[in-house]
Amino acid sequence: MADEKGFCLWFTGLSGSGKTTITNLLVRELRRRDSKLEVLDGDIVRENLSKGLGFSKEDRDINIRRIAFVADLLSRNGVPVITAAISPYRDIRDEARGMMGERFIEAYVEASVEACEERDTKGLYAKARSGEIKEFTGVSDPYEPPLSPEITVNTEDETAEESAQKIVAYLEERGFIPAAVAS
Amino acid sequence: MADEKGFCLWFTGLSGSGKTTITNLLVRELRRRDSKLEVLDGDIVRENLSKGLGFSKEDRDINIRRIAFVADLLSRNGVPVITAAISPYRDIRDEARGMMGERFIEAYVEASVEACEERDTKGLYAKARSGEIKEFTGVSDPYEPPLSPEITVNTEDETAEESAQKIVAYLEERGFIPAAVAS
Repeated sequence: MADEKGFCLWFTGLSGSGKTTITNLLVRELRRRDSKLEVLDGDIVRENLSKGLGFSKEDRDINIRRIAFVADLLSRNGVPVITAAISPYRDIRDEARGMMGERFIEAYVEASVEACEERDTKGLYAKARSGEIKEFTGVSDPYEPPLSPEITVNTEDETAEESAQKIVAYLEERGFIPAAVAS
Repeated sequence: MADEKGFCLWFTGLSGSGKTTITNLLVRELRRRDSKLEVLDGDIVRENLSKGLGFSKEDRDINIRRIAFVADLLSRNGVPVITAAISPYRDIRDEARGMMGERFIEAYVEASVEACEERDTKGLYAKARSGEIKEFTGVSDPYEPPLSPEITVNTEDETAEESAQKIVAYLEERGFIPAAVAS
């Protein structure tokens, strides 16, 4: 029955902190364990649920509420979900926690703005600095780190593989995912 | 394993045709069979996924695409879904069918505008006739009936209970829901 236990692994962290990289590693690991899984990352959601919304506090909140609505529908039916949006505001993340209760696992992907900006894999920080992108989290818009997340990974100190392993261990210990089969 | 077979029962029909009444009967019946189930009705979706959207063709299409996106996520993970929005346009319903393939069951709730207007349970037809509501399906906005729905129920000729029973029989025959336990 372990594979029937729905949960929502809710990543939060700056752009470039490593949410997507870690998510991809987790997807591979959970597939290997034959677990169901859906990923709601920022881009998928903005395309399918929130097209037309901008990046004001109000629009960001609506976007995150929609992610939470869908994550709740899935997880309460036993489907594990990973959300990988920046989700910068504490109050809305706490709203999602309130909806999902014990199914909600907040995973803070910690990395300084400086480190994320140095990586700048998508070139977004450069655009934020030049003013081409307004309201960019960490540069011209606030990021509120979680106060007591279930998991914190620090991608300045750990490799993405190490971060992913830490999360897998957490999920396994609490029976959210089936134990790995020895191969 | 029968209860693990996801499907999307996609109702389409005029306002007042009986979609919600039949849905409520189905919910009771499926719960009795211990089946998982989620209902995405027009109001739930407009509140949680589509606030701010209007009733132009473009906005209706976006709304229906969001319903289809969520219905697909659920049904492909073995969760039965009932959608109960008017969904007046054939092309977007066909798009939903394309996404979900054999999991998609179009159920046409047939009733004439006259019959629906006579019921007018929510008082919406009166508002549409007086012009208070613009772009009202069947009055000032088109309704395109499905050409080959999997199921048609006619709520002028049948009671809601009869319509619901017809649908239950369809779902049971095809193994979408577990057979009723004799009580």
